[in-house]
Amino acid sequence: MRVRNRKGASDLLANNPQYVISNPEECKGKWAEIFGNDNPIHIEVGSGKGRFVTGMAAQNPDINYIGIDIQMTVLSYALDRVLEAGLPNIKLLQVDGSSLTNYFAPAEIDQLYLNFSDPWPKKRHEKRRLTYKSFLDTYKEILPENGEIHFKTDNRGLFEYSLASFSQYGMVLKQVWLDLHADGLEGNVMTEYEEKFSNKGQVIYRVEARF
Amino acid sequence: MRVRNRKGASDLLANNPQYVISNPEECKGKWAEIFGNDNPIHIEVGSGKGRFVTGMAAQNPDINYIGIDIQMTVLSYALDRVLEAGLPNIKLLQVDGSSLTNYFAPAEIDQLYLNFSDPWPKKRHEKRRLTYKSFLDTYKEILPENGEIHFKTDNRGLFEYSLASFSQYGMVLKQVWLDLHADGLEGNVMTEYEEKFSNKGQVIYRVEARF
Repeated sequence: MRVRNRKGASDLLANNPQYVISNPEECKGKWAEIFGNDNPIHIEVGSGKGRFVTGMAAQNPDINYIGIDIQMTVLSYALDRVLEAGLPNIKLLQVDGSSLTNYFAPAEIDQLYLNFSDPWPKKRHEKRRLTYKSFLDTYKEILPENGEIHFKTDNRGLFEYSLASFSQYGMVLKQVWLDLHADGLEGNVMTEYEEKFSNKGQVIYRVEARF
Repeated sequence: MRVRNRKGASDLLANNPQYVISNPEECKGKWAEIFGNDNPIHIEVGSGKGRFVTGMAAQNPDINYIGIDIQMTVLSYALDRVLEAGLPNIKLLQVDGSSLTNYFAPAEIDQLYLNFSDPWPKKRHEKRRLTYKSFLDTYKEILPENGEIHFKTDNRGLFEYSLASFSQYGMVLKQVWLDLHADGLEGNVMTEYEEKFSNKGQVIYRVEARF
């Protein structure tokens, strides 16, 4: 998600340490302590403006959520939403998806979400796709055995690629949706993109895959 | 594929033993002999009116093809097409997809095609779907190690089911197409259904999966 720089984004993030993690390296292995309970922890890699992760946190108070995005401005918009929701079970983290093992201990995360990730359609950019095998290596390390990735996108090329990438990595596809809004999914929380694209009649794809 | 009974279908099949196998049990382990060469053998399970298997045989003279369908009338229409094509590398077989191990020795078949199989959408009919695990057991037995299934359909539910079924069986998805005619595939031979449905603007799905 590309957005115009937002003036004051940096200060806004720095002034809300109750939601925005400022010392991510020191959090590794200590997330239960940070949340103050032993509830499962779910993360969204590339959380954008935070509608999904905030909606999930509101819907599932017994699960802790962490929204992760590398872009400061985007994360500041997510923070607006988090501040408005005022939920105890959500944190935001401004780090890169490829570096997650620096911030999470093995199996510290119970489930991982990817939503409308950048498709990087050019073959030479394959390694940047969040479902490329090197990212799967990272996710596998911080998830438990048989840990799951739940992935939604409207991008056909990225979804085709990701199904094959998961499978070739040795992951098992638990369930596949080729038109999520036609099939229906109880408790589905829409992202900003999802609402916009599905309103345009675009098909939304979804898969649940486990290691 | 359901069609009205065709008068004379039985005789037509019986009178063309050069194309229609009349003694399938006796063929097990002897298909190279029957074709008169050691070329790879590809089968289509549920070959319908035979347009795909005949087109593939015309396009690939160094591969032997067997079209398999349980319905006599349908197979007789396939025979019309095979007689017209007059190709040496095609045979037709009127047997059930679940009984293939009676007619083929282990690894005797090099590749298997499923095209626009009956979706059997009701959950209680799951076992009838040609991508249900008991069928995969059968296919695995007659294919070589790492043998492949190439599957096309316009039916979203069946394709969603089949991707998960292949994956949960331990098969690897080599490549997935979620809109075959938009993405393009060199050498794609269309079935009757495929032409009809894609002309109506229906998406065609395809997957190559290996054991």
